[in-house]
Amino acid sequence: MATREYTPRERMVFSAAQLIRREGVGATGMRDVVEHAGAPRGSLQHYFPGGKEQLVNEAVAWAGTYAAKRIPKFLASLRNPTPSKLFAAMAEQWIAEFATEGFDQGCPIAAVAVDGPGLADSTRGAAAAAFGTWLDAVTAALRDLGVPRAKASALATLVVSSLEGALLLARAERDARPMRTVVRELGPLLDNAVA
Amino acid sequence: MATREYTPRERMVFSAAQLIRREGVGATGMRDVVEHAGAPRGSLQHYFPGGKEQLVNEAVAWAGTYAAKRIPKFLASLRNPTPSKLFAAMAEQWIAEFATEGFDQGCPIAAVAVDGPGLADSTRGAAAAAFGTWLDAVTAALRDLGVPRAKASALATLVVSSLEGALLLARAERDARPMRTVVRELGPLLDNAVA
Repeated sequence: MATREYTPRERMVFSAAQLIRREGVGATGMRDVVEHAGAPRGSLQHYFPGGKEQLVNEAVAWAGTYAAKRIPKFLASLRNPTPSKLFAAMAEQWIAEFATEGFDQGCPIAAVAVDGPGLADSTRGAAAAAFGTWLDAVTAALRDLGVPRAKASALATLVVSSLEGALLLARAERDARPMRTVVRELGPLLDNAVA
Repeated sequence: MATREYTPRERMVFSAAQLIRREGVGATGMRDVVEHAGAPRGSLQHYFPGGKEQLVNEAVAWAGTYAAKRIPKFLASLRNPTPSKLFAAMAEQWIAEFATEGFDQGCPIAAVAVDGPGLADSTRGAAAAAFGTWLDAVTAALRDLGVPRAKASALATLVVSSLEGALLLARAERDARPMRTVVRELGPLLDNAVA
């Protein structure tokens, strides 16, 4: 089961996303990214001539694509998939990470979205696009599960919003309780939307 | 209708909360707070001998108390209050602020909760307590509206989580759309919980 090696460029984007979701955009330095990625110093300027802004934007885009790609994988892993089981699987990945890694790491897109006027406009746009990529994947999955088109889009927003908010509460509380609560409370609503 | 003047100490806590929800904890400097509050420089050390950590903790606590106090006020302002109308009023305050002030300012508690390992443990605890103060107020309001005790607490978590997450999406999108969506989608679920 050979998996290809990641290029230095890919490793830097991945490392940036990991650091941003721990430390935030402001506290993530370019040197930290190079070190985390184990990449040669000069490669940063080579691969990211747009500097930190470009790297942050690509890291956020990576996060959106990663989150989106997980959705069909969750569906494929479920026996008799339903909207509520999909949401539970999405939350469970976070709950498992909190259990093994602690609560220091959150969502990289959220870490960018909370940044205020200091945020480059292109980065704010990258965060919106990343959320959009994720929302589209959830919408498509809900439609596959039988939720009507218009409803699927609205419920995707509800699923991602409640997950992101519960992540904030869980990290503050150092307890996955809010994640479990939103999964449990929203489950019937999601399943009842299947036509 | 005389309102009392706020003390320099109160103004500094308020200013810290305003700066934190715009700039984040890391980018909020003590001098900025003094300037924003129009307070004498020396007063910071006088009122907050624990330095920035103490000020941030008090700002977060202020935010939780503010959010909690709004809840009975929303209830009092509603004709025939219901859980869905309460949630709509909570979201509407944000939607109105986004419309007049733009999307640069978010929730101060969220701004603290996204901070990772750099966060002082006392500050992380202050964020958890602030969310708790807010959740308790929403729980009490839902109970007043007829939601059974156990359900009220779970639905308060769902309401605050989906609001916080929708705030993140709305700020990224520069559009209150996610706020309106979660309010609309959750409304029937909240009202159906009334015993």
